[in-house]
Amino acid sequence: MENLCADSGFKSTTDGYFATRRSIRKYADKEVDTSLIEEILSLAAKAPTCGNMQLYSVVVTRDSQRKKELAALHFNQPATGAPVLLTICADFARFTRWCRLRDADAAYDNFLSFTSAFADAMILAQQITTLAELRGLGTCYLGTVIYNAPETARLLKLPRMVMPVACLSVGYPAEEGVETERLPLRAWVHDEEYRADSDEEILDLYKTKEEYPANLGYPAENGKANLAQVFAEVRYPRAMNEEFSRKLLEWLDF
Amino acid sequence: MENLCADSGFKSTTDGYFATRRSIRKYADKEVDTSLIEEILSLAAKAPTCGNMQLYSVVVTRDSQRKKELAALHFNQPATGAPVLLTICADFARFTRWCRLRDADAAYDNFLSFTSAFADAMILAQQITTLAELRGLGTCYLGTVIYNAPETARLLKLPRMVMPVACLSVGYPAEEGVETERLPLRAWVHDEEYRADSDEEILDLYKTKEEYPANLGYPAENGKANLAQVFAEVRYPRAMNEEFSRKLLEWLDF
Repeated sequence: MENLCADSGFKSTTDGYFATRRSIRKYADKEVDTSLIEEILSLAAKAPTCGNMQLYSVVVTRDSQRKKELAALHFNQPATGAPVLLTICADFARFTRWCRLRDADAAYDNFLSFTSAFADAMILAQQITTLAELRGLGTCYLGTVIYNAPETARLLKLPRMVMPVACLSVGYPAEEGVETERLPLRAWVHDEEYRADSDEEILDLYKTKEEYPANLGYPAENGKANLAQVFAEVRYPRAMNEEFSRKLLEWLDF
Repeated sequence: MENLCADSGFKSTTDGYFATRRSIRKYADKEVDTSLIEEILSLAAKAPTCGNMQLYSVVVTRDSQRKKELAALHFNQPATGAPVLLTICADFARFTRWCRLRDADAAYDNFLSFTSAFADAMILAQQITTLAELRGLGTCYLGTVIYNAPETARLLKLPRMVMPVACLSVGYPAEEGVETERLPLRAWVHDEEYRADSDEEILDLYKTKEEYPANLGYPAENGKANLAQVFAEVRYPRAMNEEFSRKLLEWLDF
C-alpha cells in the first residue's frame, strides 16, 4: 500500500496497479500473518453477494502436510508452494441448514442455485485477489481446483452442496511474474449485439496472441503446427475436458 | 478517484472504499462516456484469466429500446434504469472458432470448460465493478441474467457456447445505497478443514442477520414466521429454482 499515492504516470496509482498486475507463482519463505489474511477476508466480504446470502466459504490451508496433499490435487503446480492456500467454495449448505433449522422449505440443491453460489464465490475470490495484491502480496488462481473438486471436497471435509470453485495461492512474491498479452478490446466487447465476426476477423483478433514473443516457441516445443493446437491438443485437450466433465456432473448430480 | 489519497481513518483510502462500498440501484440522468467504459474494460482485462484464454465477452447495452427489452428479462428491477448495462458472458465460442480455423481439435462444449469460462467471466465482472466504483460510478449485479439466459442470448444474438452469467448496471449514483450486514468471519472461514457446526452454532452465526434492523420487518410483511422463510419461500423459492434449473440444463445441454 505504501506506493499507493506515489507518482506512477497513471491517472492514479491504483490504476497503475490494475494495469500492471501479474500472477505470482514463486513465493518468499515468509509467513503471511493470520491477522493480515483476516483483514483481507473481512474487507472482501463487502463485495456484492446474491441477495446478501454470502453463498461461499473459504478453507485456509497452512499446515505443511495438508498443503502437500492439496498440492497433489493441483498436479503440484509451482504456485502450491505458497505459505497460504485459500480454497474458495460455492456454498449453499450453510444457508440451507439455517433455513431448515427455521422450518423454511429450502430448495438449493439444483443447478440454478449452484450458479448463484458459483458467482458469489468468484466475486469474493477476485475481491480477495485485489485486496491481497494491493497489500503487496502475490497471488495465483489454481483453476485445477475444479478438476479435482470431489477429491478436494474429501480432503477438506466439505459437506454436500459445498463445491470448491477457486483456489488462490497467497504469499510474498519471490519473482516479478510474467507479463502476458491480452486480446484487443474489440475481440471481446460487443456493441448492443454480439458481433458476427468473419473467419478473417477472428484470425486477426488472435494475431497479437500468435505473434507475442513469449508464445512463439510453444508450437515447436510441443510438436504442434501452431499455438491454437498447443491449447486445444496439449494444454486443455478433449480427453481431459470430457473425462473431468463426466466426473463433475456425476458428483454434482443436479 | 479524487478521494483516493484523502484522510479517511482507514489504513488507506482504497481500504475505505472496499469497507464501505454499496450497490447502487438508482442512477442520475447522465450518460457515461464510451471512453470511460472502454478505459475500465481495458484495465479489467488485466485480471487473471484461465490459461490467458480470456473466456468471456461483454455486450454493452445503451440503446433505450433494447434496454427496455433487456430490463423485462430482469423482471424490470430498478437497477435496469441505468444508462449502461453490461452483460458479461462465459464465452468459449470465440476461442473455439480460432482453434478450428487453425485445425486444432477444440472440445470446449462441455461442463468443465463451462466452469472455466464462468469463472473467467465472474473475475472480469468483479474487476469491472471495482474499477467503475473507484471512479465514482455506481454498479449493481443483476443475478437474474442467469434465470433468463436463453432469452437474453436470443436478444443479444449470443451464439452457442456463449452464456450470460452476470449483468452489471453502471451509471452515476442518484442514491447513497443501502448498507447491508454481513455474517461474522467465522461463519464462512474455515481453518484447515470445513468446520462441522452444531445446530446452535449455525443459528448463532445467523443471529446478526436475523436481528439486523433493516431485516426485522420482512417476516411480517411477507406473512412468514421468520427471515429464513422469507428467503426460502418468497425470494428464492423451490418452484422457481427447480423450474429455471430445468430450463437452463436443457438449454446448455452438457
